[in-house]
Amino acid sequence: MIKVGIVGGTGYTGVELLRLLAQHPEAELIAITSRKEAGTRVDAMFPGLRGRVALAFTEPDKSALERCDLVFFATPNGVAMGQARALLDQGVRVIDLSADFRLRDVAEWEHWYRMKHAAPELVAEAVYGLCEINRAKIAQARLVANPGCYPTAVQLGFLPLIEAGWVDGAHLIADAKSGVSGAGRKSELHLMYAEAADNFMAYGVSGHRHWPEIRQGLAQIAGREVGLVFTPHLTPLIRGIHATLYARLLTPAAGAPEPDLAALQALFEQRFAAEPFVDVLPAGSHPDTRAVRGANLCRIAVHRPNVTSDRSDTVVVLSVIDNLVKGASGQAVQNMNLMFGLPETTGLDQLPVVP
Amino acid sequence: MIKVGIVGGTGYTGVELLRLLAQHPEAELIAITSRKEAGTRVDAMFPGLRGRVALAFTEPDKSALERCDLVFFATPNGVAMGQARALLDQGVRVIDLSADFRLRDVAEWEHWYRMKHAAPELVAEAVYGLCEINRAKIAQARLVANPGCYPTAVQLGFLPLIEAGWVDGAHLIADAKSGVSGAGRKSELHLMYAEAADNFMAYGVSGHRHWPEIRQGLAQIAGREVGLVFTPHLTPLIRGIHATLYARLLTPAAGAPEPDLAALQALFEQRFAAEPFVDVLPAGSHPDTRAVRGANLCRIAVHRPNVTSDRSDTVVVLSVIDNLVKGASGQAVQNMNLMFGLPETTGLDQLPVVP
Amino acid sequence: MIKVGIVGGTGYTGVELLRLLAQHPEAELIAITSRKEAGTRVDAMFPGLRGRVALAFTEPDKSALERCDLVFFATPNGVAMGQARALLDQGVRVIDLSADFRLRDVAEWEHWYRMKHAAPELVAEAVYGLCEINRAKIAQARLVANPGCYPTAVQLGFLPLIEAGWVDGAHLIADAKSGVSGAGRKSELHLMYAEAADNFMAYGVSGHRHWPEIRQGLAQIAGREVGLVFTPHLTPLIRGIHATLYARLLTPAAGAPEPDLAALQALFEQRFAAEPFVDVLPAGSHPDTRAVRGANLCRIAVHRPNVTSDRSDTVVVLSVIDNLVKGASGQAVQNMNLMFGLPETTGLDQLPVVP
Amino acid sequence: MIKVGIVGGTGYTGVELLRLLAQHPEAELIAITSRKEAGTRVDAMFPGLRGRVALAFTEPDKSALERCDLVFFATPNGVAMGQARALLDQGVRVIDLSADFRLRDVAEWEHWYRMKHAAPELVAEAVYGLCEINRAKIAQARLVANPGCYPTAVQLGFLPLIEAGWVDGAHLIADAKSGVSGAGRKSELHLMYAEAADNFMAYGVSGHRHWPEIRQGLAQIAGREVGLVFTPHLTPLIRGIHATLYARLLTPAAGAPEPDLAALQALFEQRFAAEPFVDVLPAGSHPDTRAVRGANLCRIAVHRPNVTSDRSDTVVVLSVIDNLVKGASGQAVQNMNLMFGLPETTGLDQLPVVP
Repeated sequence: MIKVGIVGGTGYTGVELLRLLAQHPEAELIAITSRKEAGTRVDAMFPGLRGRVALAFTEPDKSALERCDLVFFATPNGVAMGQARALLDQGVRVIDLSADFRLRDVAEWEHWYRMKHAAPELVAEAVYGLCEINRAKIAQARLVANPGCYPTAVQLGFLPLIEAGWVDGAHLIADAKSGVSGAGRKSELHLMYAEAADNFMAYGVSGHRHWPEIRQGLAQIAGREVGLVFTPHLTPLIRGIHATLYARLLTPAAGAPEPDLAALQALFEQRFAAEPFVDVLPAGSHPDTRAVRGANLCRIAVHRPNVTSDRSDTVVVLSVIDNLVKGASGQAVQNMNLMFGLPETTGLDQLPVVP
Repeated sequence: MIKVGIVGGTGYTGVELLRLLAQHPEAELIAITSRKEAGTRVDAMFPGLRGRVALAFTEPDKSALERCDLVFFATPNGVAMGQARALLDQGVRVIDLSADFRLRDVAEWEHWYRMKHAAPELVAEAVYGLCEINRAKIAQARLVANPGCYPTAVQLGFLPLIEAGWVDGAHLIADAKSGVSGAGRKSELHLMYAEAADNFMAYGVSGHRHWPEIRQGLAQIAGREVGLVFTPHLTPLIRGIHATLYARLLTPAAGAPEPDLAALQALFEQRFAAEPFVDVLPAGSHPDTRAVRGANLCRIAVHRPNVTSDRSDTVVVLSVIDNLVKGASGQAVQNMNLMFGLPETTGLDQLPVVP
Repeated sequence: MIKVGIVGGTGYTGVELLRLLAQHPEAELIAITSRKEAGTRVDAMFPGLRGRVALAFTEPDKSALERCDLVFFATPNGVAMGQARALLDQGVRVIDLSADFRLRDVAEWEHWYRMKHAAPELVAEAVYGLCEINRAKIAQARLVANPGCYPTAVQLGFLPLIEAGWVDGAHLIADAKSGVSGAGRKSELHLMYAEAADNFMAYGVSGHRHWPEIRQGLAQIAGREVGLVFTPHLTPLIRGIHATLYARLLTPAAGAPEPDLAALQALFEQRFAAEPFVDVLPAGSHPDTRAVRGANLCRIAVHRPNVTSDRSDTVVVLSVIDNLVKGASGQAVQNMNLMFGLPETTGLDQLPVVP
Repeated sequence: MIKVGIVGGTGYTGVELLRLLAQHPEAELIAITSRKEAGTRVDAMFPGLRGRVALAFTEPDKSALERCDLVFFATPNGVAMGQARALLDQGVRVIDLSADFRLRDVAEWEHWYRMKHAAPELVAEAVYGLCEINRAKIAQARLVANPGCYPTAVQLGFLPLIEAGWVDGAHLIADAKSGVSGAGRKSELHLMYAEAADNFMAYGVSGHRHWPEIRQGLAQIAGREVGLVFTPHLTPLIRGIHATLYARLLTPAAGAPEPDLAALQALFEQRFAAEPFVDVLPAGSHPDTRAVRGANLCRIAVHRPNVTSDRSDTVVVLSVIDNLVKGASGQAVQNMNLMFGLPETTGLDQLPVVP
């Protein structure tokens, strides 16, 4: 059994970790910390866990965490970077669900997150935990930067096209829609039911923190800088991200045929054939977010719509995840499985809850 | 008082017409037809209208409609084209809220709507009722083709950019999200609450009937063919459309400066300065759909996000309407006002219902 | 024109007052105060009001309010009781949408609202603004205590039964369900979208502030103390209250027939025949909350279900309102109309927004 | 492994059975029938099951079902009664999720379900599958009538009070609220998103089919006829039932103390102490429906609110279930476990999905 600790388990990624770990056959939760809720039983705050999680929140006292094999940080940005070093020094491995170790360029991180980075030396060591790309490195990592929710959906959707070099990487567009839980368990006016229900809006159009993370990931795949417009929207969903991705096909080399829809479909199916958590739907499908609700899955479909009455050079990819599972806590457990040599799917066989 | 009739008043555009006409000081509803509901009081079907609409549905008997000054068709596609001629011949003017007269190319219409057009000769006469573009023609029209909901939001959002010739018209992208009422008041499985709530999906990505309508409108504005990817999505909203529009700025002529955000903002503000129902929000705004809920308004904001770390050549326009008001029945009343020489805003001063 | 001021216009009852007053032909809004938002334009906070409300929030500086004929308090509990006296002394009439003047028993008020009452002498003067009961007194009032949302729906539903003396007043049950806006425009965790959406719960079952208000009102109608169980529930609606009311019929006096459903229906219809804002639906109807959405209406239906296989002594009344209109700001405008001798329906002819 | 078949797996109880059985370690699904969808792969209709359910729907051909150890009927009312006999004769055990075998009084069944019963002789044999009451009989049963959703929540909530004889059984009130999936996966206008969202209404107030089922169950517990008012409401939830139950305490026998809240709490805790799927919350709690979303649980809280300012003789019980799990398919699996001698909780350890 892997001895597991959670720092900051009172948010949505924290409670989702609890749900998944309570069903994981090889993980034993031995500590969960929250300065604010120390002493409160976890199941008093989250009655859904009654009978399944017997722990209480404790002060973030290091001794308990140091006995863990693995500590998850489900904290606001800026916490893990201050505490990870001490745990690592004790031989505890760390998966950070916040953004502290996601951007390799510390200056860019400090620009977007508006604080000084407390552990730049760990940034270099941290492995970006998108399993479908970094599987081997994750297995060896001491410190994993769990990807953001939007970046997971967008990178997986663009991945085959960019790897194959079929599209113009300088002008990618990701129009992404997220459920409200993506903003975290916090009381902000625009996240209130009476504000967000029966309402739809874009936000952060001029700049969002996930933009540099997505660009970094796509650039690594492409082997060169990419250009990206990223537009997030707030949607009246509890959970779910739907990324609608647009890329223009490059003119094929002389003599080569332009890839048609069947070629695109084959490209996606081959790329993800061995991936347990990426499901390429039949050509022409429209995945809905509920088809991944509560499950550690990314479902993807590829389309090639007309642009003019006779011509089509744009690929449209639809990519859906549950932002709290494949977009956060499920992916974190997937990373844990990789890090500890377990089958990658261990404890992650929850089926989507539909309807 | 304008004597008004409604054919097919049992759908959402029909009941919305009833709501607006009941508050219109210059219109008198004298007939409303529904073959299926003949004899039923309108307020028995729509209790919200109790005390305000005393009519019952009647058989679509022509004599009552022929006494009208104006007849609205709030019918499924394919009905108005069969009945409009007889009314026009009697001197009754017609506003068709369905798609029968929207596409000028009859062959294209027949392709998308999968039926033979019953009145091609009227297609040529019909005026496309997007008031902000065709105001003068509408005032003289006998037959107005009321625009579709998506086409209204998308055309108004692109309008200033295309008129000014600032963007590449060959590669426009419209990522549009609609509330469920846009599909009409009909019992289809995917529109059920348990299917559509807490769920989000694209549909019709490979082809949607509003695509040729939008292309036709934008081409007319541009004076040449345009290229457009149009991706509609079903969103858990009752009412509301949010169109997120992407266009790439053209390289300015030698010596001319590239338009910055301030120039774009000024372009939009000037274009719509005199429009009572188009509201350009301050630069950097994110209009939400509820800000137009129940009101005959299109609210628009312009953005210029980064594409790479230092460069931005893409304009993002956010355009929101209530699909049942500015996207259907409100626009129909606006057309009626124009056709009968009333101030364009008559009876259309409802404020958005927020929250 | 009535010169109107609003104290504390940043909440939901405040913005709803703005929506209604902007459409009121006899009211002119000359001041709106908010200490926190002083200097902010009203339409910057509520973009739905752009083009219709040109004012900015100001410091609650008395001089502007003192020039008003009427001031609405749309403030949290405890504010109006401190400021009303000064305005009344200047000849300004006051409608308080908060709870400060609703309970005639100051000790009971202090028990439920957990503060010392700052103006007990005004409590005696204040008129409870349930127009359907207190119309004459309201017309003469200087200070009106606008009823709570639940109390409006529950009192109107029980009113005919208790006035007629047909039911056992000692054992009334009001099972009430409210939309989330009833809790006000504030950031509390349980009101967040991700908490309140797709979720349903009771709250305050052991005691809620509206319980003494309802009991006071029903007791006044009955002429004696009543017994009431009141159970509020939080429902995933933005607006709307549905009160399901249970009362047991008394055994009729010797020789008198027990009232059947027709008699009950007639009782309700007669009681409300002259009421412009109470609509008794046909027997057997089930009013839905959307049938009053955005409108100043209470719709009511009466039922008499079986209790055993052959016997029925329980009346079930269904009463729906929009908590922000007939349950708050609409009723406040109705009170204003009465106080200033206007037709009671002036400016309150908005139709429900359906769907 | 138990060989399992499902008749009629295209509805919500069917797909929920599929979700649960796919995670059940001792059940093997070998047949699923649907006349309408014969030939369609199950995961083409329900993409959420891709990769987990490989079957296709087949014609309801008996031979496949007859090889099963157990067949679930997830069919509309009226189907199972025609097909159960043949299966039972072949030694196949049957759990019927429809209402065909729930009412012991065939005449009453025929009254409420408006059809002739096809197998009255099986009604006598069928065991009512409310495990918490009929555990021993279920284990021996060939034919189990799986309870309705409302009846499960209401009976479990009243159970301890009626067993103990503490309340007046002649005047029980159950005010119940259900999510939309309770109506099944069918296209009816009032179940559409645009009709049911942001809306709340009662229905069937004058009579609902679950009323006789609940009365039958409570009468069996009480050992005498009970009187019940049952008011169902349609709530904008996908899943979930919240039953708010009202009962009046009987005057205790001479000398006995009236039970206070602590006594009530103890009564409930003791009654359900050994029940794995009934969770009594701490006194004063308000269970929300999401705390059982996706899980086979009934959570219950007891309250004793004031009725007058000093007196309280009414007990209020709050009882929540997921209508598709403990209210249908989860309870069916629980019954299967009992019938086949498995630990009752086998395959039913899904945690609620929160948020």
